[in-house]
Amino acid sequence: MTITVVGSIAFDGLETPHGVRERIPGGAAFHFAQAASFFTDVRVVGPVGDDYTDEHMALLATRGTNTDDVERVAGGKTFFWKGKYHDDLNTRDTITTELNVFETFDPKLSQESRDADVLFLANIVPGVQRAVRAQSSPKWAALDSMNLWIDIARDDLVAAIGEVDCLILNDEELQQLTEAPTTYAAAQAVFGWDASPSAIVCKQGSYGAQLFTKDGGGFTVPVFPLDRVVDPTGAGDTFAGGLVGYVAARLAADPSLTVDRDVLASALIHGTATASHNVEDFGSEKLYGLPGSAVQERIERLHELVRLTPAPVDLRA
Amino acid sequence: MTITVVGSIAFDGLETPHGVRERIPGGAAFHFAQAASFFTDVRVVGPVGDDYTDEHMALLATRGTNTDDVERVAGGKTFFWKGKYHDDLNTRDTITTELNVFETFDPKLSQESRDADVLFLANIVPGVQRAVRAQSSPKWAALDSMNLWIDIARDDLVAAIGEVDCLILNDEELQQLTEAPTTYAAAQAVFGWDASPSAIVCKQGSYGAQLFTKDGGGFTVPVFPLDRVVDPTGAGDTFAGGLVGYVAARLAADPSLTVDRDVLASALIHGTATASHNVEDFGSEKLYGLPGSAVQERIERLHELVRLTPAPVDLRA
Repeated sequence: MTITVVGSIAFDGLETPHGVRERIPGGAAFHFAQAASFFTDVRVVGPVGDDYTDEHMALLATRGTNTDDVERVAGGKTFFWKGKYHDDLNTRDTITTELNVFETFDPKLSQESRDADVLFLANIVPGVQRAVRAQSSPKWAALDSMNLWIDIARDDLVAAIGEVDCLILNDEELQQLTEAPTTYAAAQAVFGWDASPSAIVCKQGSYGAQLFTKDGGGFTVPVFPLDRVVDPTGAGDTFAGGLVGYVAARLAADPSLTVDRDVLASALIHGTATASHNVEDFGSEKLYGLPGSAVQERIERLHELVRLTPAPVDLRA
Repeated sequence: MTITVVGSIAFDGLETPHGVRERIPGGAAFHFAQAASFFTDVRVVGPVGDDYTDEHMALLATRGTNTDDVERVAGGKTFFWKGKYHDDLNTRDTITTELNVFETFDPKLSQESRDADVLFLANIVPGVQRAVRAQSSPKWAALDSMNLWIDIARDDLVAAIGEVDCLILNDEELQQLTEAPTTYAAAQAVFGWDASPSAIVCKQGSYGAQLFTKDGGGFTVPVFPLDRVVDPTGAGDTFAGGLVGYVAARLAADPSLTVDRDVLASALIHGTATASHNVEDFGSEKLYGLPGSAVQERIERLHELVRLTPAPVDLRA
């Protein structure tokens, strides 16, 4: 079962209380692929510049990720983002954003990428997400976005969201998108649109993540217990990578599977376990050589942490 | 199984985006009793003034709560707090705090209150919490506090925390108390003290609550899904009331029970279900006449929302 992912492939400049990286591989599709490749085959679609060397491409191809649809633009420069995190790591300032080759990106998917059974539209301009979606016919598709597109391309984003099975956004973005007073109300508002996904995953940073399904189901995964976080960059994308990777692996085992609340609840566990490794070093540096068994250990730890055997008592009338 | 609770009994002035209340019954012990009384017998210890009428006392006595140890101070005035919530309801400004009868409060517990098997030290000056703890010999005791006492009475608070089984604090308070970089690290820091509780419950507002136990266990309860919150006042105290009330009910059914991770995980569910009703109206107004079955329905809904059947997939090496 193959996942096609479209999104940014980038260089990041990072400053956190734990150190500095001037220019390391990053971008939403890059981080996603590092995580999803633990679970299944991944094909990456997106442009890079001449400055993206074979060495960088080899990192993108970790655990067999296919890079045939990565377009190297002659004379172009790779997307560059530079940010500085505040001491609590919950907030950051963007210092530089250079779109470079993404300014004129017009995605053209190979037949192999079109044929993938699972599609992930990582954060990128909604028009590009829609163009990729239109070229594909996946069994299951998910989408991530960001506040910028809610501000400047809301109609396109709403249309894009209506064309996928699962929306993945963070708390502030979901509330900004709907102007609803609670996260639950925000999810219900999206489910009320003319075209809407059947599931919404709300990322809540150091508080974990919540699942809502259109049929009234839900689940909450805690953040993985860590003593410290080194760099949150890519946490959301590796969470999505583990989540979507898990869904793809389940669909590989049972092609007739319905991706329902129970499947997605487990998917949140797998996404969280994968992302928890990512935040322990800069960029996706910890994931490159990480054995799957290290992710598996954290999946099992999370299973212990969410275990509940109902033990009722009588309440007074 | 009886719970003795010591803490503030107050009048509150409240302003939220949904309305205003000039002066309604409130205070930590009051809110706690409204919730815990769904589960077991409660005895309240604390002072009030002449202005606390029989009608107010009758509200405090909801569901049979015993008020024999509520001291009515002749010529005194009841504690008064006035606050205004911001639009998102996550933050508030204190407009007025009048300690009144609490300035000179010296708790004296009746034999019946001393004999209670469960003790809850609601938020109040840590010296008073320690005085009450010293007069009691409960099977199980829990304590809540606030940022003010971390600022001005940290040593007393640390000593008080070392004398109970379970610490209940909110996220910011726990991090302020320990200066640790993550909630998990903050809990481990407290467990490392010379004297420490065996369990810590971290309240996370609209993100739910997390349990940590000294033996490495944990659990996370989501916030109950609501379309809107009317007034968060007393949410933490009614959460504690449901939580401690559940523990007392379990101890009543099995006096030899060890209050371990599994018991406390269920206790978090019961606390959340109870608190979710409280925030739907001002003060504890919704709880006065609420049937236990309404709380029970939400307990069952939460059981559905946390249910997970592990469904593993193979990860790549």
